[in-house]
Amino acid sequence: MRDFTDHLKPAHDGTATLQAERDGSAINVKELAWHLLGRDGFLERQEKVLKVLSKEKIFKKDQQLNLSRPERYHLGLARAKATQRLIRREGWDHEDYKLAEYLNDEMSPYFLHMSMFVTTVREQGSEEQQSYWMPKILSYDIIGCYAQTELGHGSNVRGLETTATWDPIKKEFEIHSPHLTASKWWNGSMGRTATHAIVVAQLLLPRRDDPTTLTSHGPQTFIVQIRDKKSHLPLEGIAVGDIGPKYGYASMDNGYMLFNHFRVPRSAMLSRYAEVADETGAFVSMGHPAVVYGSLTYVRGQIIMHARLVLARAVTIAVRYCSIRRQFRDRDSKSPQDDEMKVLDYPTVQIRILPLLATTFALHYTGEYMYELYRKSRETIEAGDFGPLAELHSASSGLKSLCTTLAADGIETCRRAMGGHGFGGRSGLVGLNADYLSKPTVEGDNWMITQQVASYLIKKISEAVKDPHATPKDPTDELFQYYLKNRSHRVPQTVVKDGTIDDQAIVEIFQWRAADLSYRAYQARVVEKKGWTKMMIQLHNLSRAYSEQILVTNFYKSFSTLSSLSSPTPNVLKICFRLYALYTLDQAASSFSMTAAVSPESVYGLQDIILELMAELRPHAVKLVDAWSIPDFLLDSALGRSDGKVYEELFDMAHRRNPLNKVTFDPNWRSEDIVMGSGDGGKHVLAKL
Amino acid sequence: MRDFTDHLKPAHDGTATLQAERDGSAINVKELAWHLLGRDGFLERQEKVLKVLSKEKIFKKDQQLNLSRPERYHLGLARAKATQRLIRREGWDHEDYKLAEYLNDEMSPYFLHMSMFVTTVREQGSEEQQSYWMPKILSYDIIGCYAQTELGHGSNVRGLETTATWDPIKKEFEIHSPHLTASKWWNGSMGRTATHAIVVAQLLLPRRDDPTTLTSHGPQTFIVQIRDKKSHLPLEGIAVGDIGPKYGYASMDNGYMLFNHFRVPRSAMLSRYAEVADETGAFVSMGHPAVVYGSLTYVRGQIIMHARLVLARAVTIAVRYCSIRRQFRDRDSKSPQDDEMKVLDYPTVQIRILPLLATTFALHYTGEYMYELYRKSRETIEAGDFGPLAELHSASSGLKSLCTTLAADGIETCRRAMGGHGFGGRSGLVGLNADYLSKPTVEGDNWMITQQVASYLIKKISEAVKDPHATPKDPTDELFQYYLKNRSHRVPQTVVKDGTIDDQAIVEIFQWRAADLSYRAYQARVVEKKGWTKMMIQLHNLSRAYSEQILVTNFYKSFSTLSSLSSPTPNVLKICFRLYALYTLDQAASSFSMTAAVSPESVYGLQDIILELMAELRPHAVKLVDAWSIPDFLLDSALGRSDGKVYEELFDMAHRRNPLNKVTFDPNWRSEDIVMGSGDGGKHVLAKL
Repeated sequence: MRDFTDHLKPAHDGTATLQAERDGSAINVKELAWHLLGRDGFLERQEKVLKVLSKEKIFKKDQQLNLSRPERYHLGLARAKATQRLIRREGWDHEDYKLAEYLNDEMSPYFLHMSMFVTTVREQGSEEQQSYWMPKILSYDIIGCYAQTELGHGSNVRGLETTATWDPIKKEFEIHSPHLTASKWWNGSMGRTATHAIVVAQLLLPRRDDPTTLTSHGPQTFIVQIRDKKSHLPLEGIAVGDIGPKYGYASMDNGYMLFNHFRVPRSAMLSRYAEVADETGAFVSMGHPAVVYGSLTYVRGQIIMHARLVLARAVTIAVRYCSIRRQFRDRDSKSPQDDEMKVLDYPTVQIRILPLLATTFALHYTGEYMYELYRKSRETIEAGDFGPLAELHSASSGLKSLCTTLAADGIETCRRAMGGHGFGGRSGLVGLNADYLSKPTVEGDNWMITQQVASYLIKKISEAVKDPHATPKDPTDELFQYYLKNRSHRVPQTVVKDGTIDDQAIVEIFQWRAADLSYRAYQARVVEKKGWTKMMIQLHNLSRAYSEQILVTNFYKSFSTLSSLSSPTPNVLKICFRLYALYTLDQAASSFSMTAAVSPESVYGLQDIILELMAELRPHAVKLVDAWSIPDFLLDSALGRSDGKVYEELFDMAHRRNPLNKVTFDPNWRSEDIVMGSGDGGKHVLAKL
Repeated sequence: MRDFTDHLKPAHDGTATLQAERDGSAINVKELAWHLLGRDGFLERQEKVLKVLSKEKIFKKDQQLNLSRPERYHLGLARAKATQRLIRREGWDHEDYKLAEYLNDEMSPYFLHMSMFVTTVREQGSEEQQSYWMPKILSYDIIGCYAQTELGHGSNVRGLETTATWDPIKKEFEIHSPHLTASKWWNGSMGRTATHAIVVAQLLLPRRDDPTTLTSHGPQTFIVQIRDKKSHLPLEGIAVGDIGPKYGYASMDNGYMLFNHFRVPRSAMLSRYAEVADETGAFVSMGHPAVVYGSLTYVRGQIIMHARLVLARAVTIAVRYCSIRRQFRDRDSKSPQDDEMKVLDYPTVQIRILPLLATTFALHYTGEYMYELYRKSRETIEAGDFGPLAELHSASSGLKSLCTTLAADGIETCRRAMGGHGFGGRSGLVGLNADYLSKPTVEGDNWMITQQVASYLIKKISEAVKDPHATPKDPTDELFQYYLKNRSHRVPQTVVKDGTIDDQAIVEIFQWRAADLSYRAYQARVVEKKGWTKMMIQLHNLSRAYSEQILVTNFYKSFSTLSSLSSPTPNVLKICFRLYALYTLDQAASSFSMTAAVSPESVYGLQDIILELMAELRPHAVKLVDAWSIPDFLLDSALGRSDGKVYEELFDMAHRRNPLNKVTFDPNWRSEDIVMGSGDGGKHVLAKL
């Protein structure tokens, strides 16, 4: 369609504006990108996979928000299948595949198959079970899911209601859902896609002396075919389907499943660590799976690294758009000729975006630290010595909680900082936000799992109190010993010394506060025997303080790795360190004061320092987000486009690519029809209700 | 469909659980509901309108999340039209209509017609224009919208690019969009529905001495037909359409519109206050519209009252669901027979929900105060004496910012407190959240408008500094005089005196902090001549502190109205006051300490006090949310149902009413088809992309 709008241009040229921003900073973007993302050839791989995906029409994203939920699942499945064909056509390895999923940026209906399903068979299946199932899994002859969570039961696996009762006559298990709340629920890939499921159920065995009485042996895993191979309909005795729309994950078929005395053979129980003896029907345990500290640390490291890229996406969009968007002249400006200001030059916009920009780097260096530690200690782990990893593993619950909260909240903060257009679909944040909002509550609820790290810290500081001169096994031991030695004569630190910010003092302030809160928790729990439940808020705050200390410490330690970067990058990253740390300090100032970590004067002076740090960081903002190397394909955002064509893309999408504009409506209430000149008067829509 | 799931029940009976909760509190719900919502017959009206709407199939909400964006607009328009027919069938008045919109709970495609469109014609049209247009508007013979905001220009009306140039020969205006960024954008009801628009454009007149030079007379309003009466297609020279999907408001056709030298007659310019003289072509101004302090205060009051009901909805859902949901036994429990705990009994859940429950009441009493003041001073307003209303009006920007932020953030806090099911579509929060997230950035961005109240406070305290003994005209004058008299010998207050919480001291603490921050702003701006832009964060914080002080003060003042309520309601509401105030104090503790409003010891003791207050409030939580009287029809939530049938409804929706489950898919990647046994193999979906 050609019309008079074709030749129109925005009043200000966004491309030129972004170019000027880039010209205004001497940061070497390629070098910094390599520093951040060089690991495992990520950048080359991203380029390679992007080239393929961006040519395939089915991976185009710009109509996604127009689709209905059923259509959105159709599309997700079509893409999942197309990806499998691409893997084979392009000869992609597993890392390429994961990068394709990252760029495709949706929860795929196949996702559980190659994650929890295959992992569980591999880790908990006997050798015989593995040799039977693994070829079918790897070829996708079957599609699997993982059915643990139930309608009435989330994190507490011991509370699951689904039962698997051993029938000693037929030598089968009978899987059954005694209540509605026993329905499996939320399980990804199960609603429409999977042919098989790992089912977690309470194992019940008849007592040998009294076969009418059942004894529970806790939750066990079973591999169960749930749908017919040909018709793909549920097997008799199974009710299974999709649970319906959610905040996000529209492409994923999260499912429900109930069993009605459903029978599976003895071989269905994954039996690497436990089985029911064929002859006697007795429960045989072959030990518990070795705690996989190492790989868990790796997984938590991935959550942090993912959080940093999610946050980097939101910040990339906000920084670029707010550099282009102009609004109001400076109130003190004397000249009526002055342009409207770029909104990123307002401190009220900076205070929302720039600390988050700094946070992306804070997350990065802790994620790096965890990866490095995992890599270095792989050998000792295999020898059974977990060394400093045990420490980090326990801290990882707190970090999962903190980092996913920072990223989830950060997306919305960026959106609001963008004003009206942030609310639009072409902000690129609608889907990101809807999907990522699951993170604070899944894989360990962010408020619940903080108890784990608090529990660990209380144990550690109790040991330090008992023996203040033991040889420290890890940094936490060192910290607690330092704290106990100095607590009686603590002088709160100041942030600024001789007119400059004291980075080392900042680190000490965060560490001291974490130690002091640990000591208070120890006092309450161990000395005063306070109830655990009553302490939960305090424990949550402790975990957060401890995790913030980890981020600050690792960011500070990274300074030694920055010398390879050319000027001004190392200094700009140090500004990010200060901004992240002091902004965090300011947000929780009362906790820092109460613990005598920092002097009140330092706290009251923070706002001015933060303003100055933001002013120093401002000229580098666009180049810093460029370094995160988020492709336009993934950003899927008019506001965040790397070429600055914000308004051109917003308008093009509305005027030329909006399906709603292809229909003409009858707005007159006297007519019951909705669509003008259409066959059915829009009645097909109403029929859906 | 009948199957084995039909007879299944949840392990715990939600209905009995909620009944037990209700039996555990002696609050008289009807009485409290009347206290909160008795005004203007709201409760009876709600019952009356609900009865009608809930019988009409088209207003059923449970499939909304399954629809595509175009379908969602179709439905919105169908409902808008159906509502007009109901109004006539039922003989509803305007208040009934507004209540129907509230219960229908979607932005209607007719919304702008009966709000900004009719208001602008009424307020800015000449008598002649009104007698021509009003009958057409009131009968909905035309449907109007309001086209002010542009693609490149939001809050700053002076920056609008659309021009209306006077042609002295033809005596017409030529409306034109010089750039892409001049496109009208976001304007509700314009995308597909409206036949007419109020267009705001810069009026340009040729200079009489040099007709080739144009003089701008600032933004003026024009009433313009934009679509053909019969075909409903855009008129020649106009490009208009829907801007596409957004976070929320899927039922609304927010639009874009560009003009290509589009001609309108002289009569198009609304000319109550300004016109172009017919003969001379000169700009004639008949004064500015009287500042409508009164009605603006009323509108702001409405925003607060709306925010409280939105927050009450989220809190209702969270309180009911978290009373029913159980997870984990108490960690210190000695008996393995103990039930899992209700999650609302965990302090980590309480700390997220109960302060928000208290906030609903805090918002309420300030909204009430503004309504009352408006009502009382109507006569004096009409006589031109704005009295204490001027004060309140200026504060209302700060309150809009604070209250909509509290409600928007509160929805998400409630969602996360509900764990996994909070992420589900039947939480009832998906649509509420998506729509309400617009509020912090529209109708005055929440960060920008706080400058207005700060500016006012600086002016007021400057006056008080100049003349500390002038007769105070309003509460702010009184506060500032009190502050200036006492600042040299201030002793920070304590919250607890003689073992009890001192409510009056709490009020003083909030007021002192607001006064001290005002004084600091005055010092920086007036004395030290600091740049306005550099002060913006400080000004924002000042506005927030001042607004929090208003909420606390009005809540405290409401104590005198509580005596008519039966026990224990007045005491429970006082607990809410303390919880709201002390939670707020704790969140911003550093600001209260810095201003010497409160003693550090008081701050450090807050967490224990808050825990105790929450324990006192907990037994009344369900009845308190019941009092907000949100009908199930409006909640549209499985989790928040008043009868507690959480799991029954979640399951029924998934198993019996999910359209995705009507289709069987082919999960095998080797086949390009998606749907099994369907004619088109799902290709219609892909064709949409």
